[in-house]
Amino acid sequence: MAIFQHTFQLPAYPRGFHLITQTIEREFGAIRQIRVGLLQVFIQHTSASLTINENPDPTVRGDFERFFNRTVRENEPYYEHDYEGSDDMPAHLKAALLGHSVLIPITNGRLNLGIWQGVYLGEHRNNGGRRTLVLTAWGD
Amino acid sequence: MAIFQHTFQLPAYPRGFHLITQTIEREFGAIRQIRVGLLQVFIQHTSASLTINENPDPTVRGDFERFFNRTVRENEPYYEHDYEGSDDMPAHLKAALLGHSVLIPITNGRLNLGIWQGVYLGEHRNNGGRRTLVLTAWGD
Amino acid sequence: MAIFQHTFQLPAYPRGFHLITQTIEREFGAIRQIRVGLLQVFIQHTSASLTINENPDPTVRGDFERFFNRTVRENEPYYEHDYEGSDDMPAHLKAALLGHSVLIPITNGRLNLGIWQGVYLGEHRNNGGRRTLVLTAWGD
Repeated sequence: MAIFQHTFQLPAYPRGFHLITQTIEREFGAIRQIRVGLLQVFIQHTSASLTINENPDPTVRGDFERFFNRTVRENEPYYEHDYEGSDDMPAHLKAALLGHSVLIPITNGRLNLGIWQGVYLGEHRNNGGRRTLVLTAWGD
Repeated sequence: MAIFQHTFQLPAYPRGFHLITQTIEREFGAIRQIRVGLLQVFIQHTSASLTINENPDPTVRGDFERFFNRTVRENEPYYEHDYEGSDDMPAHLKAALLGHSVLIPITNGRLNLGIWQGVYLGEHRNNGGRRTLVLTAWGD
Repeated sequence: MAIFQHTFQLPAYPRGFHLITQTIEREFGAIRQIRVGLLQVFIQHTSASLTINENPDPTVRGDFERFFNRTVRENEPYYEHDYEGSDDMPAHLKAALLGHSVLIPITNGRLNLGIWQGVYLGEHRNNGGRRTLVLTAWGD
C-alpha cells in the first residue's frame, strides 16, 4: 500500500459555494495510480469548508448560500468574537456545520463519487483570499 | 497493511433515520480480517446522509426527523432549486449538515463503536429508492 | 505503511467547547513516527462531538456554545426522547451536526493543521463525565 500527499492553493473565490472536483483531480496525479483506496481533502482554514453535494445545477449552490446565511446570521447580539468583521463569526460556525474535510473512495484510478456528486468549497468570508488544501491519497 | 472495498445497495427505506450498523457488518466480511484499522462508509447520493448516533431508543431517530424538518423547511420562498419536489432541496441541505460518510475504528475484527453508538442512514427524500454505499476498510 | 491505535479517556470537561489538540499530541507518540499519513480522532459517545476550529481566541468557543444552544433548543415540545434530562436530546442533535470524528493530515511527524486550527471537544451534556477517544494513525 502506498500513500501520497500534496499541498496546494486554490485561486481566490468569492463568498459562496463552488465546485472544485476537477481542480482536485487535475492537481493530484497520484489518484490515477491507485486501484483501491481513498482520498482525503483537508482545508487548513476555519472560515471556509468542504462538503459533497449536487454538481449539475448551480441553483443548488445558490440555495446553500441563502440557507446558511439565514441559519447562521451576521451581527447576532450575543457574538463576542466580532472584531474581524460581521462575516467572521458566522464563517467559523458555517465551517463547523459543514466540515473541514471530505473523504472519497478511489476505484480504478478515479474518485468513486456518485453521478450527481461534486466537491464543494464553501467560502464563507467576503474576502477569504486563496485557501490551502492538503490532499492525501492511499491504497493499492 | 491490506485494503478492501465493497459496493452494495441498501433496501429502499422510508423518509427518516434508520439504523444500518448490522447491515454493514453483515455485508462486509473484510472487517473481521482486520486487527487494527478503519472502515469508511460512503454514500453515493446527495439527498441522503450517514451519521453516528444513539442506537437503542427509536424515539431519538424520530426526534432527529422532527428536528431536521423544522430546521430545514420545505417550500422556502428563496429556494431556486425546486423542480424535483418540495422535499428535494431540504434533502440536499440535510445531507450537507449530517455528512456523506462515517469513519469508524476497527479493533480485533470488529467496529470499535461506543456501546450506545450505531450508524444512521438519513433518508431525506419521500421516495429515495435504493441507496448505494461504498465500504472501504484498511489496516493490519 | 504502518498503523497505530490508542484509546484513552479525556478528563471530565464542563459543558461547552474545549481545545484538546495538545492532549492528543501528548497522548499519542505514534504521530511523531509518521512522515506522511493521517490521524483519526474518534469519540465513542453520542452526546459529545469533535470538530476543528479557531484556536487562539476563547470567545469563538463561547460563541459556539451560544449559537448551538439557540439552534438546538432544550425542551422542544415535540421531543419524545426526554427522560435523560433536558440537555440530552439537544446533545445528540449537536453531536450529529458537528460530527463524531476529525481526520487530520500528518506531515513530518506533526499534525498538519493550519496555523489557526485546533481540535475542539464539544461537551454537550451538563455532566458528561470522562469521554473516551480512539486515536488511529497510519502512514509511512
